[in-house]
Amino acid sequence: MNFASDNCGPAHAEVLAAVTDANQGFAPSYGADGLMDAVRERIRELFEAPEAEVFLVATGTAANALALSTMAQPWQTVFCTPLAHINTDECQAPEFYTGGCKLTLAGDGDKMTAEALDAAIEGWPAGDVHVSQRGPVALTQVTERGRVYSLEELAALTEVAHAHVLPVYMDGARFANALEALDCTPAQMTHEAGIDALSLGGTKNGCLGVEAVIFFDPDKAWEFELRRKRAAQLFSKHRYLSAQMLAYLTDDLWRRSAKTANARAARLAEGLKGLPGTSFAAEPQANMIFARLPRATHQRLTEAGAVYGLYEGALDEGDGDEPLLARMVCDWSITEDEIDRFIEVAKG
Amino acid sequence: MNFASDNCGPAHAEVLAAVTDANQGFAPSYGADGLMDAVRERIRELFEAPEAEVFLVATGTAANALALSTMAQPWQTVFCTPLAHINTDECQAPEFYTGGCKLTLAGDGDKMTAEALDAAIEGWPAGDVHVSQRGPVALTQVTERGRVYSLEELAALTEVAHAHVLPVYMDGARFANALEALDCTPAQMTHEAGIDALSLGGTKNGCLGVEAVIFFDPDKAWEFELRRKRAAQLFSKHRYLSAQMLAYLTDDLWRRSAKTANARAARLAEGLKGLPGTSFAAEPQANMIFARLPRATHQRLTEAGAVYGLYEGALDEGDGDEPLLARMVCDWSITEDEIDRFIEVAKG
Amino acid sequence: MNFASDNCGPAHAEVLAAVTDANQGFAPSYGADGLMDAVRERIRELFEAPEAEVFLVATGTAANALALSTMAQPWQTVFCTPLAHINTDECQAPEFYTGGCKLTLAGDGDKMTAEALDAAIEGWPAGDVHVSQRGPVALTQVTERGRVYSLEELAALTEVAHAHVLPVYMDGARFANALEALDCTPAQMTHEAGIDALSLGGTKNGCLGVEAVIFFDPDKAWEFELRRKRAAQLFSKHRYLSAQMLAYLTDDLWRRSAKTANARAARLAEGLKGLPGTSFAAEPQANMIFARLPRATHQRLTEAGAVYGLYEGALDEGDGDEPLLARMVCDWSITEDEIDRFIEVAKG
Amino acid sequence: MNFASDNCGPAHAEVLAAVTDANQGFAPSYGADGLMDAVRERIRELFEAPEAEVFLVATGTAANALALSTMAQPWQTVFCTPLAHINTDECQAPEFYTGGCKLTLAGDGDKMTAEALDAAIEGWPAGDVHVSQRGPVALTQVTERGRVYSLEELAALTEVAHAHVLPVYMDGARFANALEALDCTPAQMTHEAGIDALSLGGTKNGCLGVEAVIFFDPDKAWEFELRRKRAAQLFSKHRYLSAQMLAYLTDDLWRRSAKTANARAARLAEGLKGLPGTSFAAEPQANMIFARLPRATHQRLTEAGAVYGLYEGALDEGDGDEPLLARMVCDWSITEDEIDRFIEVAKG
Repeated sequence: MNFASDNCGPAHAEVLAAVTDANQGFAPSYGADGLMDAVRERIRELFEAPEAEVFLVATGTAANALALSTMAQPWQTVFCTPLAHINTDECQAPEFYTGGCKLTLAGDGDKMTAEALDAAIEGWPAGDVHVSQRGPVALTQVTERGRVYSLEELAALTEVAHAHVLPVYMDGARFANALEALDCTPAQMTHEAGIDALSLGGTKNGCLGVEAVIFFDPDKAWEFELRRKRAAQLFSKHRYLSAQMLAYLTDDLWRRSAKTANARAARLAEGLKGLPGTSFAAEPQANMIFARLPRATHQRLTEAGAVYGLYEGALDEGDGDEPLLARMVCDWSITEDEIDRFIEVAKG
Repeated sequence: MNFASDNCGPAHAEVLAAVTDANQGFAPSYGADGLMDAVRERIRELFEAPEAEVFLVATGTAANALALSTMAQPWQTVFCTPLAHINTDECQAPEFYTGGCKLTLAGDGDKMTAEALDAAIEGWPAGDVHVSQRGPVALTQVTERGRVYSLEELAALTEVAHAHVLPVYMDGARFANALEALDCTPAQMTHEAGIDALSLGGTKNGCLGVEAVIFFDPDKAWEFELRRKRAAQLFSKHRYLSAQMLAYLTDDLWRRSAKTANARAARLAEGLKGLPGTSFAAEPQANMIFARLPRATHQRLTEAGAVYGLYEGALDEGDGDEPLLARMVCDWSITEDEIDRFIEVAKG
Repeated sequence: MNFASDNCGPAHAEVLAAVTDANQGFAPSYGADGLMDAVRERIRELFEAPEAEVFLVATGTAANALALSTMAQPWQTVFCTPLAHINTDECQAPEFYTGGCKLTLAGDGDKMTAEALDAAIEGWPAGDVHVSQRGPVALTQVTERGRVYSLEELAALTEVAHAHVLPVYMDGARFANALEALDCTPAQMTHEAGIDALSLGGTKNGCLGVEAVIFFDPDKAWEFELRRKRAAQLFSKHRYLSAQMLAYLTDDLWRRSAKTANARAARLAEGLKGLPGTSFAAEPQANMIFARLPRATHQRLTEAGAVYGLYEGALDEGDGDEPLLARMVCDWSITEDEIDRFIEVAKG
Repeated sequence: MNFASDNCGPAHAEVLAAVTDANQGFAPSYGADGLMDAVRERIRELFEAPEAEVFLVATGTAANALALSTMAQPWQTVFCTPLAHINTDECQAPEFYTGGCKLTLAGDGDKMTAEALDAAIEGWPAGDVHVSQRGPVALTQVTERGRVYSLEELAALTEVAHAHVLPVYMDGARFANALEALDCTPAQMTHEAGIDALSLGGTKNGCLGVEAVIFFDPDKAWEFELRRKRAAQLFSKHRYLSAQMLAYLTDDLWRRSAKTANARAARLAEGLKGLPGTSFAAEPQANMIFARLPRATHQRLTEAGAVYGLYEGALDEGDGDEPLLARMVCDWSITEDEIDRFIEVAKG
């Protein structure tokens, strides 16, 4: 009953098989492998973006920091939410990679509205040499609280950004989960909605460790390549990244895995919904659930071996009546049985 | 007949098997996996260094840049050779990671003498606020020209560095090949010879992509962890790095692979030695050969499908009599047959 | 009637005379001038801090950014208020100098309470490699809204910081104005209140351009010197900085000028107090006044030639009844007549 | 008899008078002062460059580091000589400001030939993501050894740079001295010779501390302004920089001062020329002399109170017969009498 994170789960067998298959004889290094050509073509096709430039890195933080450093000048501020991964979980990798960008927080949680973004941008007057200059907007889809921006919300946000001539980056660490949640095409959720660059996560959805950075406008491709190398993020035996990503995008594996993970989370949410003293801190829309649990429930679950993160409070803090905020992430590999058992224990 | 680089070869079956074995169920992320504990213990034991701190990253450039950034202040200069990988092949990753270090070049090729190092250090007067401040010394073992520092040479170099209170880093991208060449223990080639920190390469010797950074003095361990995370080099599904490194250090795989690669290179060198117009630009001591080849020889080899790098000149440059400088790297996976065939073609 | 800023006023005659006096013959460069020795001694005496290290730079932003970069690691966050000069007016100089620090905003305006600081610090869990690490606390005295921390408030804030083992920096661009407002000694407002490092502003209070950075703990003196030089902030003809600062601290010029400026602001505040539709956005305590003015008043003042900044709104924005937020800064050189005239016009 | 440096001399009376004149009443801050407009116009006229963008900073290192950071990407290498001030005297300010540029050294001393530059550029293959990318060329005029590039030499160098599509920066800390040495116009020595950006030094030639950065192509003006502010190099009371530079460029003061300084150095060189055991390490062409002096001569001069720098050796080092390398810089304020007295003492 492990709901700690989708980065604690195993890689999908199809991905591992692809890595094994790729391990034959010699292959050109540093991304010149034939598998990478196939990855690029596959992504252009899936995203209906024949001009897109595609690069692979091994961690989500690398994808975020490199993409943003290519989109921002060091004297600019990046607009994101307070709960954005780039703000709360990357030990200032964006600041390091960009050479000193600031983050300006818009909204008060995991989602940003067009109004909040507009106010945040307007908060930094344009053309004033003394202040932070306006930089890219960064959105996370699925958000860090497990919610999903609708296509309309995305369009409204990118419209505000583009009205200020600012590019928009999407942190898509759980991109496939969002796709499934919205049941739309990759193109609809990205360039058709005004997204300029994207990280397409593989690691949290069945890969060993691979993320694609996609620029819909190819102008900065060479700069990105230099930044990736300078950041020590260019793999010599690159074929093992390519093989993962290609398998991930083959036979709809990415969407199959995401669909499974989302379905598991829905089952879990359904089971928790009726329980006394339990409520959702954010509407479950993809594969993460933020629930407030009674302390007794938490104790039972922990004793039964369930693993998940607590975001506020702890058993030995506060008074005994206050509920605890728990994050439960459903990896694609979690079984229905485990979820049902979790619910049984939670019921008490 | 692929001699392009040891990063073009495949991963060893034992390494891949370990990755597959590690792919069971859930595991704690970010290095808290049990395999990492085993890696740490294994390295401490192999290096006879019970206090050593060990970290894994996925590229050699990351290992170099992170280690140096932990050892140097941004206003210092790192002493290395002109041909050092950190100077010639990393697109200024060390400068980026350190926040602006300079590299001061000592020696005129791939190896540094104690005298050259001393002169380079003395070239920057101590205690003068206007000049670059003296920083760490970086040595590559095996060097970028395929040569190996003897234990005596290492001791003489580290003595000079330590006399100036400067730490010494060893870029051990081909550490196992050097160990085999010197037939010594890991301890002898590192802390007993005055090395303060080391990157222990796995990628070029049968892994998919993993390098260990080892600090013999654990003082900077936490700083390194922060730097690794901030640099987006901390893997979430870290177990796949751990598994590789553990397999690599199990049953002497690292030394077996290196011994094979070195033996292949010796066979290649032996075969080339007698050929007319052919000479070695550097004494072959490990698994890389730098040979000057007649243009006709190069043409025959290329037409026969041999792959390797040219370091100076090209077929269509210069006059037809000048030999070409070729680098031939023997991966552990290259067969004796391929080498013999290469020699046959070279003989003409 | 110029209230735009205290950096628009002239230098005091005594300062200019000292610069002229210093312009005799040859003098050692880069801070080895005898006048700098006198500055250092004078500051140690005035601050009752015989061990303090003292350095001069020419801009307040340089003082802030250099001091903070010496106190913070690049993966740390600096705690400051939303209206802190380092957050709103330095085009990310702190981020640049520190190599990528974040700013965490505590409080909702220009002042921080001990509670708000504690909550902000606790917001970044200690010992977690994924998050921003806790760094120095930066306070501005006089604040950017013209208010002054009492000695008790300072002590409470530094107690919170020190309880978390975090150092405290004071941006003292208007240090002398605060000293006069509190009528205390330099020691009381700094190291006795728990301040670890300070910028002592001269530029806004009668100098041409000079600020002293003072470290009460001399441990980081050499690092600061290297950082200052590397930042291109070490003056070759340093005597002209020394002469300014020495004159500034001679015969109480710094306190005399500040007393005058504060008195002018008090006179201005007194005159504005009774006017219909006029109110103070922050309690005037030193030499800056933030007042909400009726639009008609603002129009009369502007037409009469008064100069000051508008912080929110503008004549052509919003509806005609909303007051405007104006900042009026009293330079030491503004006359009582000008203030009285300003009040006359404001009265209408 | 002070020949330590032209940054040890006083400011010219005309410059100081201008600063005093500027100290009247209120003036807009941060470069919006009317004097700055006059400076800009004056420089455009003197340089016959009506489109040029002009900015003032207070130190030569700031001018160099800011200009280069505007011309180079962080993954590029700057081509300069081993003795370039940016390589030997700025504590890695260029590396800091550029975000990690490397310096590639061309030539073996203070001057670069077109051939040496071409070889250095070709040493970094274009379009290879693994290596340092080619960046701007930086020339110092007058060089750090007191020599002057002829207009033909400059044209040959800039032709090589431009053939590789690289911009050329001139460190003109002693620009006026070079102008006088070549007896040419500012335009001839800069944009007509292919120079793209220039620092025009004032500090070493009679100012208190001011340098102009001039871009002949205005495209990067706004970026430079942001970089200057972010680097804490934008002065609030900017009028004191403007006033210095305007006086410096009025009534030919810059050329008069330089002419005097050069003439003094010529007189000194003439006096030294005949002395036994004395020779020039570099041909004296402007206001700096590098001479090898017998140890006895040095001792006599020192005892008589002469001040100058030793660049190699010291009285208590080496054997007693080896001459010492002395640098003698003639400030515009040094008198003929002092020079004659120096020669008398040197004669013994």
